[in-house]
Amino acid sequence: MSQGKNMKVYLAGPEVFFANGETLIQRKRALTLQYGFHPNIWMGDAEIPDDKFGSGLYISAANEVVMRDSDFVIANITPFRGFAADVGTSFELGFMCALNRPAFAYSNDPRHYEERIAGHFGGTLAVREDGVFRADDGQMVEYHDMADNLMLDGGIAARGGIVARPKSGPLLPADDLSMFEECLSAARRFFDGKSQ
Amino acid sequence: MSQGKNMKVYLAGPEVFFANGETLIQRKRALTLQYGFHPNIWMGDAEIPDDKFGSGLYISAANEVVMRDSDFVIANITPFRGFAADVGTSFELGFMCALNRPAFAYSNDPRHYEERIAGHFGGTLAVREDGVFRADDGQMVEYHDMADNLMLDGGIAARGGIVARPKSGPLLPADDLSMFEECLSAARRFFDGKSQ
Repeated sequence: MSQGKNMKVYLAGPEVFFANGETLIQRKRALTLQYGFHPNIWMGDAEIPDDKFGSGLYISAANEVVMRDSDFVIANITPFRGFAADVGTSFELGFMCALNRPAFAYSNDPRHYEERIAGHFGGTLAVREDGVFRADDGQMVEYHDMADNLMLDGGIAARGGIVARPKSGPLLPADDLSMFEECLSAARRFFDGKSQ
Repeated sequence: MSQGKNMKVYLAGPEVFFANGETLIQRKRALTLQYGFHPNIWMGDAEIPDDKFGSGLYISAANEVVMRDSDFVIANITPFRGFAADVGTSFELGFMCALNRPAFAYSNDPRHYEERIAGHFGGTLAVREDGVFRADDGQMVEYHDMADNLMLDGGIAARGGIVARPKSGPLLPADDLSMFEECLSAARRFFDGKSQ
């Protein structure tokens, strides 16, 4: 038995916002257990304050407690409402990286960040006169063959994790959890290797 | 002299991507000095690897070093290429919150997150049949009177920081640094209070 068997994982992602979010979250937790990990969740949801701002603070604080209590993180960084990962998920990934916990992420989008931006601007990304890779809006575009901003991909790589993405083809639907499973599988190897 | 005089601040934000980014970054550093803080920057940029992926890893690691070496963070969470903050900035905010460093943020957008989403969907946000506040795309919308995702606003509030925003009116232009100065001013009070 590897020590990984009792490892607690923080499942970060925007599923809570999805119309079918609860189903998806339950499926992710069940898969997590199948790979021998404990999906760490917050058990104290009976006391959420009534006011809008206060309830936000309360949920934030609770999530921070669960993160500190987790051994590693698997983050869904599939673009959410735009080109990039959900910002709450990105915050949580940074939080776990600062604690030096192993970090894994997946995106159901096969494209690099720069490919997504190029798609939006009609493929007009180019190195401009100033030598910088810019989109038609004049803004620089990161060009690192990464799934998203270099802080996310870089923080994960520095801690031995992976960013799982489809090798090619279309964006996978939100309820396709094959990339999530690639993370579970990689985490399994990571912790088994450490404990042998 | 307060101990805050020598405090190092990590200036997180998407300015590096802006067409006028370098000018803006220099202005922010100058203002930071005026408020008695040291704008912490990475001094080792002579060795960035040539390859795309490797250079991303290198910059990520360097930014992490500067963050750990900083006493607090001021993050520009003005929406970037969409509805929400830049994900790199969000990662960095989470990173600094995990280290329990005081965190401040500003947005040049006066609107709550839910107001921005409502604007995009033609004002059709509503509590749906299932009792959940959703946009027309069926996705839940956070409704906490916060500038962005509750992890960002919540993490900042928990560490005594503020999220500065215009009280009303239009989105301030990117080169308007009045909200940034509100953060500097709040940080000044925060550290002076602590050291008196």
